[in-house]
Amino acid sequence: MDNWLVPADREPTALHEAMRYAVLGGGKRVRALLVYAAGQTCLNNPAGATAVEAGLDRAAAAVELIHAYSLVHDDLPCMDDDALRRGQPTAHIRFGEATAMLAGDALQPLAFEWLAEMPIAPALIVQAVHTLAVAAGSRGMAGGQAIDLAHVGLGMTQPELENMHALKTGAMLEASVMLGGIVAAASSPQRQALRSYARAIGLAFQIVDDILDVTADTAVLGKTAGKDQADNKPTYVSLLGLEPARELAAGLRRQAHEAIAPLGGAAANLAALADFIVARER
Amino acid sequence: MDNWLVPADREPTALHEAMRYAVLGGGKRVRALLVYAAGQTCLNNPAGATAVEAGLDRAAAAVELIHAYSLVHDDLPCMDDDALRRGQPTAHIRFGEATAMLAGDALQPLAFEWLAEMPIAPALIVQAVHTLAVAAGSRGMAGGQAIDLAHVGLGMTQPELENMHALKTGAMLEASVMLGGIVAAASSPQRQALRSYARAIGLAFQIVDDILDVTADTAVLGKTAGKDQADNKPTYVSLLGLEPARELAAGLRRQAHEAIAPLGGAAANLAALADFIVARER
Repeated sequence: MDNWLVPADREPTALHEAMRYAVLGGGKRVRALLVYAAGQTCLNNPAGATAVEAGLDRAAAAVELIHAYSLVHDDLPCMDDDALRRGQPTAHIRFGEATAMLAGDALQPLAFEWLAEMPIAPALIVQAVHTLAVAAGSRGMAGGQAIDLAHVGLGMTQPELENMHALKTGAMLEASVMLGGIVAAASSPQRQALRSYARAIGLAFQIVDDILDVTADTAVLGKTAGKDQADNKPTYVSLLGLEPARELAAGLRRQAHEAIAPLGGAAANLAALADFIVARER
Repeated sequence: MDNWLVPADREPTALHEAMRYAVLGGGKRVRALLVYAAGQTCLNNPAGATAVEAGLDRAAAAVELIHAYSLVHDDLPCMDDDALRRGQPTAHIRFGEATAMLAGDALQPLAFEWLAEMPIAPALIVQAVHTLAVAAGSRGMAGGQAIDLAHVGLGMTQPELENMHALKTGAMLEASVMLGGIVAAASSPQRQALRSYARAIGLAFQIVDDILDVTADTAVLGKTAGKDQADNKPTYVSLLGLEPARELAAGLRRQAHEAIAPLGGAAANLAALADFIVARER
């Protein structure tokens, strides 16, 4: 991504600096890892391994761009108003609100630009574009953010909470897995297995996020711990309690493993990622 | 677009209402008209007229989505902080800042979703996605916004002003024309003619915008007149004076006509749009 992003000395420099800051500032890169792991599991593409690898590079970078943009906008004063992200000042603290918003706005089309540059069959690129677009939009991530916003300070039932997270975090995690499958030209049964896997880890991811908000230190987490509680946001922990939330996450991890069992040993990295998502400490 | 946008009663309702408000609130639809006019000029696509028409519908709607999102974000307090757009309250006045920002965020991927649904050859869709993505990003519209932002209250030379507008407004007008050509599978000489035409009308469009900011009433304009002057923003009028700006626009109109002369009578709507862009009163 460092090589592909527009250099920071190219006009408009503040915008390009802010874009690079948002994207290259680290993070777990779970979405990118899911793209690679899913792609390596289903190598059916007649375009060959080199083309698929180059395609996975672009697709993995594209989902990270969408993730990075969403964090920048989420941290803005009119949203979560957060000053700290990955232990660093958030983009709007560093570059000002307007430049931060524009950087997010510019990262989003860049994701589609990179997908369009994958050296694989155009029909697969079109599937990838559609998948990413739906996941990022109002029936996906942006919709989840809006539901979240509408419920701050209000109660939420567990089905409502699950629906919110299925959109807010789950949609992009699922899209990451499916994009890997699309680039590798996964068969229809393979795609079905990937989708079941993705839904399980998507939900597990959010439950663990909620657990960490309660149990982790700000220093380890790299973002302000206890913020959901302070904001009176509904979470799995506030709804179910800490232990039941942990059990739910463990059950989803088993579900994820079962979902990819038909894919055989090639799915080892997907299995490892399911373990990581549940066991992570930040 | 009314039929394609998610209904306003679908959750999250505030988001979907805001998206519809931003998109369906009128406007000149110049970008959509450019897509249709360019597409109808170069009907080479072996997919046939019905498929091309359906593709042009999607592409025209897609450029309007990007335009609508850009206006919503541009009007936000951290950007131009404008309360009035097309004679109506801006989206953030009506729905609040967070929902307005999210509506813009969700409109952008929807544009790519609609392009991916065009019933034409996938290779052409990929070209369309790439063209729109570049035009919307940091080397296009978002970049132009950032340059604009960086120069408020500062001087600008004519070349700097032209570069800013080439990105801020020109890139999406050019993409609209090129998208029409792509959907219609325009030949390489046809695309060259379209590009020259698009560059001329793109620049003319902005010059006329600057002229109208000075000469039109807020009521006719549907947005706050005199705002550029009040904000001390560099414009063609502040830089060249009113009459020289008018002459420049008239010259660009002639250039646009010359550019499409090789395309023959099929380009009549493109010619009429060039005339409209220069003669418009709002």
